Amino acid sequence: MSPYTRLEAAFARAAILNETLGVLHWDTETMMPKGAIAGRSDQLATLEEMSHEIIAAPRVGEMLAEAEEGAAGLTEWQAANLREMRRAHVRAVAIPADLLVAATKANAVCQHVWQEARPANDFAAVKPHLAEVIRLQRAVGAALGASLDLSPYDALLDQYDPGARQDSIDALFAPLRAALPELIRAVVEKQRAAPAPEPLPKPFPVAAQQALCRMLLDTIGFDFDHGRLDVSAHPFSGGSFGDIRVTTRYSEDVLFPALFATIHEGGHALYEQGRPAAWRHQPVGLAKGMAVHESQSMIIEWQAGKSAEFLGFLFPKIREAFGGDGPAWSDGNLMALARRVEPGLIRVDADELTYPAHILVRFGIERALIAGELAVDDLPAAFNEAVAGLLGVTVPDDRRGCLQDIHWHGGAYGYFPMYLVGAMTAAQLFAAAVEADPALRPALAEGDFRPLVAWLRTHIHSRGSAVDRETLVCDATGAPTGADRFLTHLRARYLDS
Amino acid sequence: MSPYTRLEAAFARAAILNETLGVLHWDTETMMPKGAIAGRSDQLATLEEMSHEIIAAPRVGEMLAEAEEGAAGLTEWQAANLREMRRAHVRAVAIPADLLVAATKANAVCQHVWQEARPANDFAAVKPHLAEVIRLQRAVGAALGASLDLSPYDALLDQYDPGARQDSIDALFAPLRAALPELIRAVVEKQRAAPAPEPLPKPFPVAAQQALCRMLLDTIGFDFDHGRLDVSAHPFSGGSFGDIRVTTRYSEDVLFPALFATIHEGGHALYEQGRPAAWRHQPVGLAKGMAVHESQSMIIEWQAGKSAEFLGFLFPKIREAFGGDGPAWSDGNLMALARRVEPGLIRVDADELTYPAHILVRFGIERALIAGELAVDDLPAAFNEAVAGLLGVTVPDDRRGCLQDIHWHGGAYGYFPMYLVGAMTAAQLFAAAVEADPALRPALAEGDFRPLVAWLRTHIHSRGSAVDRETLVCDATGAPTGADRFLTHLRARYLDS
Repeated sequence: MSPYTRLEAAFARAAILNETLGVLHWDTETMMPKGAIAGRSDQLATLEEMSHEIIAAPRVGEMLAEAEEGAAGLTEWQAANLREMRRAHVRAVAIPADLLVAATKANAVCQHVWQEARPANDFAAVKPHLAEVIRLQRAVGAALGASLDLSPYDALLDQYDPGARQDSIDALFAPLRAALPELIRAVVEKQRAAPAPEPLPKPFPVAAQQALCRMLLDTIGFDFDHGRLDVSAHPFSGGSFGDIRVTTRYSEDVLFPALFATIHEGGHALYEQGRPAAWRHQPVGLAKGMAVHESQSMIIEWQAGKSAEFLGFLFPKIREAFGGDGPAWSDGNLMALARRVEPGLIRVDADELTYPAHILVRFGIERALIAGELAVDDLPAAFNEAVAGLLGVTVPDDRRGCLQDIHWHGGAYGYFPMYLVGAMTAAQLFAAAVEADPALRPALAEGDFRPLVAWLRTHIHSRGSAVDRETLVCDATGAPTGADRFLTHLRARYLDS
Repeated sequence: MSPYTRLEAAFARAAILNETLGVLHWDTETMMPKGAIAGRSDQLATLEEMSHEIIAAPRVGEMLAEAEEGAAGLTEWQAANLREMRRAHVRAVAIPADLLVAATKANAVCQHVWQEARPANDFAAVKPHLAEVIRLQRAVGAALGASLDLSPYDALLDQYDPGARQDSIDALFAPLRAALPELIRAVVEKQRAAPAPEPLPKPFPVAAQQALCRMLLDTIGFDFDHGRLDVSAHPFSGGSFGDIRVTTRYSEDVLFPALFATIHEGGHALYEQGRPAAWRHQPVGLAKGMAVHESQSMIIEWQAGKSAEFLGFLFPKIREAFGGDGPAWSDGNLMALARRVEPGLIRVDADELTYPAHILVRFGIERALIAGELAVDDLPAAFNEAVAGLLGVTVPDDRRGCLQDIHWHGGAYGYFPMYLVGAMTAAQLFAAAVEADPALRPALAEGDFRPLVAWLRTHIHSRGSAVDRETLVCDATGAPTGADRFLTHLRARYLDS
């Protein structure tokens, strides 16, 4: 066996451990009995450790050097795979083992404390744990950065989106920062000028919501022969290649959240189901970072899912599912409800127009936390001030402020900006897809996602991690990622329509 | 760290991989989408290989030798653990890696073919695969036997029940072989003399069966905080320590099978939930073989579950669950149905009295297959002849003959006898428990399993694998495993009552 072939075998083993971790994580959130958490934590920690050991092994470093010497004989995908292997190995050895263990443990403890502290609105309880998490993530960022010649925050960003840097993301977000406040004001004003939409009569029985969600996944092309739909406290898409498990959550008091969460996670799932099977156990077969992943969920949820065409298909199904009749259930009223814009407190409840502000708040704060420019003591005040400045709303308590998201408490710094890069990328990809295929929008009106998904399969899914995100976006859309298409989309949908 | 402590760390890692395999196996049978089987097979094979590598490592052999030299300083449980480690290591290195891979693969292929061949009644389709499975199991038995100084079949038996030998099992079964034909004849005659029981009116709605099954698990002391109840094609108890997952299957045409399958698997689960948590990741913390495991399911299902006391508690619950009223639902009629004895074709449907004959058929045939005294070509005829001789019924087709069970097609030789050793052990344990605690039987009449389970916790569960099966049984009952208590039980329940 050549050094490259031996590397493939080693990485395949690590990939299979990671797939298994995917199944275990899904099980933890959906099926596992409460009392089993201690044993499950042992399983997760051990499998993660074994996967890390494989990739960080000195022998892998030697094989990489040998394979890189003989790289001339590799195919394009093999060469890309070798690059991704090198990247994984460098990152795995950059973080000292004891730091990794300490960080993983601190994240788990803080996340656990946070789960009680959030509903209790108790920032003081979480504060010392959060300080420790940040201290260790700063150390992780420093260790990675020393290896990669990056600042700590850039090194953390690069984990979630290879190649992403604070400065380039700042530049990407600048036009939104400039244009959105005025755009939001104009849309809210336009909405106020029209009669307020009539609320739908509750309750929305869970069984009917479930049936609709299954229908929606079928509609977007989710393959139930290689996936499932279940319920969890927070919607996610997980499992493993060829076995993608999507979750949502139902409340009988609200209708749209479960439906849109389902197709959002379904968009992630299509990306998982659509990458090349031949590379399923190799680094080059993985998703190209979280920004691209989020673009795949956002293109399904926001771009296609909230298009006038698709909503025209969806609304009769909704009336049918709930026996809806009368003015509240009219297309016009449902449209007004589904596209309501309103600056609010909660990121995950935000609409397309105000969502970016939630990310800008977090992007600014988390880099200051990692840079040591903001102390944990001052986090709530800084968070509330940023929300007031960017969204114009007053945060009444930390539960609806800096305690609302799991990310920081679980050690994820550099993750939040990817949501917005993903949303912007989605707008750009959708515009390119619609331009390339005039049949795409009319098909959505028939509940037919095949033209859109076919375009995504060709331009995104099938490429795995063979090229970097900017090449992927440039090849697919003819331009690097920018804010234009996103702003054009928001204006067209919310102001001009 | 001492060599012993380092061994504990290595074996804990293997145990955590095995726990993870337990979760994956459960998922495969209950939740996994059909199309995910290829990926799942990779996961199972890789984790099994990694667990095997850990235990078979030459370094583990060296550490064992060092630890055995210093064994004087170990506690009783540590010393027992060291013995179990040695046993696992010797077995892991005895089978050449390529033989293990070939056997695992052949088992999977044959089992897959069997799944279609059984309903199609197509022995010819499965035959070449079965021949290969037997050839490889014979080789596995020979390799193990060479290491352990045992015949191939004894080496296979020893895998499932450490210390079990063909001759000792023969001796154990001899009194049953002698006494059962006449006993069955007498019971069937006694039944014929009474009016035939009235069949219960179908259907039995699944929801009501499910609620009853959950109630039954609660009743026997199953801990839903550390376990689940689900549905699978074949009932099993699986998962991992602290997270025991029981399955059953429902048919609206029959009532008792789902209920008794549930408490049977629940009995296995109590054994899993009741072993010492401190040793959960060590070999000494494991169950003491399949015969003891089966004794724990049989004591709950047959000994306690079909006792007059517990049935008296159960029947009103059954009437309540299905709104049963009238003579078919009377205690007397339900008792006659629940305890019907009738020689039949299917092992898993057999009653307490005819079940042993099904095992004797298989025990005789599988040892002949492994010894090379019976060719696969001749298996159906030999099977049918043995059934006719021992049960007095004619096998009409292979579907209800040698194709009915998965075991042989999945490579399990030496497993079948454990079911009967388990049933006999259960009778002996139950008799000892009832003698030790006069409150035990009256408690069952109240649906209170606590006295029985407390006795099992003390005498069986808490001992893990610290002593061998015979010591376990002798300590608990004052006598080695024998047939007396089982025959006494059958006579008392079916002839004298």
